[in-house]
Amino acid sequence: MSILKDSALRQSVLDFRSARDWEQFHTLRTLSTALAVEAAELAEITQWTPDADLAKRSVEARGKIEEEVADLCILLTYLVHDLAINVDDVVRRKLEANGAKYPVDRFKGSFRKYNE
Amino acid sequence: MSILKDSALRQSVLDFRSARDWEQFHTLRTLSTALAVEAAELAEITQWTPDADLAKRSVEARGKIEEEVADLCILLTYLVHDLAINVDDVVRRKLEANGAKYPVDRFKGSFRKYNE
Amino acid sequence: MSILKDSALRQSVLDFRSARDWEQFHTLRTLSTALAVEAAELAEITQWTPDADLAKRSVEARGKIEEEVADLCILLTYLVHDLAINVDDVVRRKLEANGAKYPVDRFKGSFRKYNE
Amino acid sequence: MSILKDSALRQSVLDFRSARDWEQFHTLRTLSTALAVEAAELAEITQWTPDADLAKRSVEARGKIEEEVADLCILLTYLVHDLAINVDDVVRRKLEANGAKYPVDRFKGSFRKYNE
Repeated sequence: MSILKDSALRQSVLDFRSARDWEQFHTLRTLSTALAVEAAELAEITQWTPDADLAKRSVEARGKIEEEVADLCILLTYLVHDLAINVDDVVRRKLEANGAKYPVDRFKGSFRKYNE
Repeated sequence: MSILKDSALRQSVLDFRSARDWEQFHTLRTLSTALAVEAAELAEITQWTPDADLAKRSVEARGKIEEEVADLCILLTYLVHDLAINVDDVVRRKLEANGAKYPVDRFKGSFRKYNE
Repeated sequence: MSILKDSALRQSVLDFRSARDWEQFHTLRTLSTALAVEAAELAEITQWTPDADLAKRSVEARGKIEEEVADLCILLTYLVHDLAINVDDVVRRKLEANGAKYPVDRFKGSFRKYNE
Repeated sequence: MSILKDSALRQSVLDFRSARDWEQFHTLRTLSTALAVEAAELAEITQWTPDADLAKRSVEARGKIEEEVADLCILLTYLVHDLAINVDDVVRRKLEANGAKYPVDRFKGSFRKYNE
């Protein structure tokens, strides 16, 4: 039911916020916008990188990538906590829906899905 | 080390992709861009909602919110798998860094952080 | 046919790029991603701002807002130039389509459009 | 001082909004978020496209690209109107700042800028 496997760590993330009384600033809107901002910062890392240099870029920007991933996970932890979303449940449902939408026999190795 | 608590579910997410030979389409760039697109779709849900209507909006758009959260978690699962990022580790480090940056005594209930 | 009214200025924007041989880095993908990154930076300005403080925020962040708007206009200038898009034409068509979709008598002052 | 060259068209964009009494829904926050959402939709068009297929993709997705560009220009028209931003002025200033930051002799053909 959580983004973070270690439930003690998950609690630390929630405690960080409550120690600062910051729940008052967190709503579906502010958390969603913050997620969009952090995801854009992650996309910024490769925005000018040609395909051929992506592997090298992943290595040299490792620290920055890890920070953005951490920010996304922290924000998601707050969002699913506040809305009482069971992450495993919603992922399970989405995976089933995607399985029906993209059957293996028609979409194996196919780029079509992506470009329609 | 994972976004999803249930390691069998995490494996299902990875199996979904390998059954379709879709690893070839996943790079730091495509996954980052996809995360930015999904996060923007989440932000879209409240883009015209005034503060006073956010609680109501969370309820009426529940299904859509859950789908976007699922998409974000699935994409993050691929990203941290492919880059061998230990989510718990990077979150722990980020939390420590944030703790130093925003000490409780100076930032308790304070909006300043957010607006400078 | 342009984002910028002053055609000499529009030419300066294009000259800035060609003087540095940067056309080679500009594709539909890199320019689109850059637009998404800059727009997210604009959204970041108000991400934690409650509705009641938006007017004040517009004033105190004026310089930052102007920079982001400039970045968006510069990127759009490159994009429409490279794809030979006639901005006035596409806006005219979109306005007509929106007029049909949101007739005045049904959507006057209505928030419905935004929340369905 | 405008995104759109044709001042009659610019007026039509503003009239579209006032005919529907929609100014009340437009703030720095809602317009910024809408810009981020539309820019993400533009980025979505090439999110799975390899570099080698970008030219083909530009052609086949022409209609969609034009719609997103139109949406961005319409939103920018509202934003610069509401904040009384002189687009040509802010672009001119930004271009000067960028010129100082990226002198031609050091950045000609250089990818460095993009990856530091």
